Amino acid sequence: MSAHRLFRDRGYETVGVAELCSDAGVNKGSFYHFFSSKRELLLEVIGGAWDETGFLASWEAETPKLPMDKLRQYLQELFAYHYADREATGHVCGSLLGNLALELSTSDREVAEKLDELFKRETGAVAKLLAEATDLGEVSLGNPYRAAEAVVACLQGLLMMAKIRNDLDVLPDSETELLRLAGVAQPWL
Amino acid sequence: MSAHRLFRDRGYETVGVAELCSDAGVNKGSFYHFFSSKRELLLEVIGGAWDETGFLASWEAETPKLPMDKLRQYLQELFAYHYADREATGHVCGSLLGNLALELSTSDREVAEKLDELFKRETGAVAKLLAEATDLGEVSLGNPYRAAEAVVACLQGLLMMAKIRNDLDVLPDSETELLRLAGVAQPWL
Repeated sequence: MSAHRLFRDRGYETVGVAELCSDAGVNKGSFYHFFSSKRELLLEVIGGAWDETGFLASWEAETPKLPMDKLRQYLQELFAYHYADREATGHVCGSLLGNLALELSTSDREVAEKLDELFKRETGAVAKLLAEATDLGEVSLGNPYRAAEAVVACLQGLLMMAKIRNDLDVLPDSETELLRLAGVAQPWL
Repeated sequence: MSAHRLFRDRGYETVGVAELCSDAGVNKGSFYHFFSSKRELLLEVIGGAWDETGFLASWEAETPKLPMDKLRQYLQELFAYHYADREATGHVCGSLLGNLALELSTSDREVAEKLDELFKRETGAVAKLLAEATDLGEVSLGNPYRAAEAVVACLQGLLMMAKIRNDLDVLPDSETELLRLAGVAQPWL
């Protein structure tokens, strides 16, 4: 989706309605038919960002898998997404959540709350898998939600570093290494 | 330092030279005596940010301590710094590194490189302690530098979440919990 990409890559303030329209190939009349303002579009983009990835949807539809396999698949897809983005644009783009969080979270509480919802959906999905994995004895975690926050925070922090360096090498070599870094991986992973 | 705080809390673009001067109680003439531009001041602020914290300096001067005790002290001081900032300003401020990283790292490569240096100084200091701790058998880590990157990335990610929520509760309850979250803590920590 073009607005997602523009906001992620260039931030909110520097992208105007004219550019959003020309990038999407629509005229301003159409834009204001759907959205009362650029800010309303931003809130829609953030609200839809998790569903758009389709990460979780594909797992739910599949034959049952062990929860840690699902989590590893999620991380593999996420890494692949960032590598594909770099191929397509020629630079490391970071994440919509991270990029907007630091631009707008102080100045616009409603945007901050939407970003927090997005973060909680990702964390919740990871925590659900970690809780299932704990129940099945795949891993041993006292607090799966805290562990999920660590996984998501670690990812966001690493993506921020990758963006600063314009180099994805700071990402772990594999999803297993990320889980180990985030304190979740067990020797048998 | 007032410029550090202004750039951290409000970003680079929205803070003007006039505001920097009035906040610091100097006139524009003095400003341009020292700095050719706002951007030059920004580069100075980033370059001095690590020394300014004084975290490492205080350890080096002290009686020898075990490396993991030093690392825990660093994290305790860092948490205390963010809690004190929230008390002083009434909101969660995040970090200069994180806040500027996502505003400027795509648009200004020189700023990005300075931010990367800051990140590498923090990571290097943590990695040195983890390597010493590994040598002494305090912890068992295959790659102390990677583990240090995880600690720093996890911290940055959690600070970003704390900023979105304007709530420091997302930070771990203790430095030991952070080390556990980042995969470094051992049972005896």
